[in-house]
Amino acid sequence: MSEFFNVMPSGEAHELLFRSLSVRTRAEKVPTAGASGRVLAKDIYSPEDLPAFARSSMDGFSVRASDTFGASEGMPAYFEVVGEVPMGSGPSVGLAAGQAARAYTGGMLAGGADAVVMVENTQAVDERTIEVNRPVAPGENVIQVGEDVRRGDVVIPAGRVLRPQDIGGLMALGIMEVSVAQKPRVAIVSTGDELVPPAGSPGPGQVRDINTYTISALVEKAGGVPVPIALVPDEYETQRLAAVEGLGRCDMLVFSAGSSVSARDMTARVLGSLGSPGVLVHGLAHKPGKPTIIAVVDGKPAIGLPGNPVSAAVVFGMICRPAIYRLAGCTEPPRAPSLSARLLRDIPSVAGREDHAQVRLVMEGADLCAAPVFGKSNLIYTLVRSDGAVIVPLERGGLYAGETVTVFLHT
Amino acid sequence: MSEFFNVMPSGEAHELLFRSLSVRTRAEKVPTAGASGRVLAKDIYSPEDLPAFARSSMDGFSVRASDTFGASEGMPAYFEVVGEVPMGSGPSVGLAAGQAARAYTGGMLAGGADAVVMVENTQAVDERTIEVNRPVAPGENVIQVGEDVRRGDVVIPAGRVLRPQDIGGLMALGIMEVSVAQKPRVAIVSTGDELVPPAGSPGPGQVRDINTYTISALVEKAGGVPVPIALVPDEYETQRLAAVEGLGRCDMLVFSAGSSVSARDMTARVLGSLGSPGVLVHGLAHKPGKPTIIAVVDGKPAIGLPGNPVSAAVVFGMICRPAIYRLAGCTEPPRAPSLSARLLRDIPSVAGREDHAQVRLVMEGADLCAAPVFGKSNLIYTLVRSDGAVIVPLERGGLYAGETVTVFLHT
Repeated sequence: MSEFFNVMPSGEAHELLFRSLSVRTRAEKVPTAGASGRVLAKDIYSPEDLPAFARSSMDGFSVRASDTFGASEGMPAYFEVVGEVPMGSGPSVGLAAGQAARAYTGGMLAGGADAVVMVENTQAVDERTIEVNRPVAPGENVIQVGEDVRRGDVVIPAGRVLRPQDIGGLMALGIMEVSVAQKPRVAIVSTGDELVPPAGSPGPGQVRDINTYTISALVEKAGGVPVPIALVPDEYETQRLAAVEGLGRCDMLVFSAGSSVSARDMTARVLGSLGSPGVLVHGLAHKPGKPTIIAVVDGKPAIGLPGNPVSAAVVFGMICRPAIYRLAGCTEPPRAPSLSARLLRDIPSVAGREDHAQVRLVMEGADLCAAPVFGKSNLIYTLVRSDGAVIVPLERGGLYAGETVTVFLHT
Repeated sequence: MSEFFNVMPSGEAHELLFRSLSVRTRAEKVPTAGASGRVLAKDIYSPEDLPAFARSSMDGFSVRASDTFGASEGMPAYFEVVGEVPMGSGPSVGLAAGQAARAYTGGMLAGGADAVVMVENTQAVDERTIEVNRPVAPGENVIQVGEDVRRGDVVIPAGRVLRPQDIGGLMALGIMEVSVAQKPRVAIVSTGDELVPPAGSPGPGQVRDINTYTISALVEKAGGVPVPIALVPDEYETQRLAAVEGLGRCDMLVFSAGSSVSARDMTARVLGSLGSPGVLVHGLAHKPGKPTIIAVVDGKPAIGLPGNPVSAAVVFGMICRPAIYRLAGCTEPPRAPSLSARLLRDIPSVAGREDHAQVRLVMEGADLCAAPVFGKSNLIYTLVRSDGAVIVPLERGGLYAGETVTVFLHT
């Protein structure tokens, strides 16, 4: 019972962990088209200007801007239409003074043109003649060469988690392959004498192991590869062997620990026996999640999550998710999605402890509201029935009904 | 140029579309362990009570509660410790009056026990005797049979997008397989005379097709299967054949239309020719995204996205993403992640039009701020450089620097 006297705020624990993590996964090349969600391993420099040619941003007529100077509704400028530059073509026509060529949104300008008159500011006089009733400045309605990206620019920095638009940005430059971090492999060891695999019927006193599966799904969502190692009883040697195997095969170890004091003691001893610096944090100032153990072994994180499923999921989000991103070289993981909502009932807490209270989102009239789900933290359906969590900060003794709170969504 | 006189607010367009969508993908059975992110096809009923036995929620001693009545620090109750119920075991000991058995968090109680005394409220007298210095009520520190879930309860409703904790919840009941909606297949047709495949060097006036790839990545994130059909020129018959093929092979069609007026007219004609009811919406009161075409063909959505990448991504999020979820039977797609931030500069708009302005998130001291990215909406790197979008509602003429705004994150 000597443990958990010195629980640590999660922010501090986070920092302590991240200072000791030296392992990063190696880079690998993958096709850009399939790289959404991967972490970029190297800065990407643009091999070319984008756009590569001056493009019209409007439907209309490309002209020499100076030919339009002074044009107005009452005193339009007349242009001879000498042709068009079709989409996908080079400047097939060249302009002399007083000449114009049809231009299309995204298409090239005619040779000699430096601006585009919007079709709305023209009037057809006959088949070959238009009036222009508004002047354009040089460059007006034109996207210049390199206006989006200049050759040699860093277009996407290393460490970025690639999003769909980033894939588009890379494709626009003809970058068909990118160097990304290999997905961190996360070993999962589930421990507990009472646990049995979920298929089949548990005997008296036995329960199904669910954390292996919940944690696997969470690892995948965080961009890692879950590697379930074993379901092991509360025996020191068996646990230690599973932990050694997990760290040997993977970049990170997640131990789903038993929930009794003796089981937690054993987890701490196992994680402490694996290498240096060993156990850094032994208990978080956090509810749920107090019985969390954070260790680093030769630069790899080894996390002992609380055995109960709600605590395990909450601590995973706070500690394991950012660690997985860090292993891939991403220092700023995608922010947890959140929403503002009006709290429907008081959430009691204790100053000096950060609470994560599960809530359901409900509409009251046009108001989005958060209704606390007051289930016990050891009941998985407390989480299943929740849409997200509200955080009661360390320094507050609770939150009050009617407050606007931030709900961090379970996705 | 007759089009776009009657642009429609996106909410209305949304409703009009959703009323006509009758197609749903079929159900298929998948292992629960791999079902995270899938849409549940049928309500799931619990086959059993959870927990299946009364479990201790504390480390301590199971007792008959009535034996502790009246116990206090000054007048403790004495108990004979007759054994323990190890984790994963049935009630191996039974209690007579005045007897207690060691209990562990998550473990069973001894036979005849109806409550658990926390170890903190006991004192060891000798090897076989403890003092209890606080009474417990019947059921105290015990999770009752069925307290989490009762047999026959609907535990997860059809239409839910399964999250990691839902996987855990199903596993806890031994449900190893679930019926989920097949992933909607989304045909993607990219059109434009100027477009060439992204590998290789475009000639004069040509640009790389990037929307096929951006849209593919967005479809995957929305739980669909992207099926790129073809990159086709602005020729009616070719486009129509590609559209027919797409709708034949898939549950939904996304047309990435050219950006010139004539190209958009052609898209509208193509989408209108495919079946009934045909084109429902021809232009959105939205910036970017005005030249959007929404059609329904025999119950399947057929959406003409604007050709420029920023508009395409914005409209995809508003129209296509919810449509994909709807095809899978999910009426409430996961909410778009969002954050509150302080706006750093004015965003001008026009009343009667909903604007989506791209922003970057920056810290100013401890404040999270949103800095508008004033790139042209036809430049893909406007999106690449953005973290999210701020919505200027239909009825507002703009947003002001200093306002607290909601940023919808690009993820």
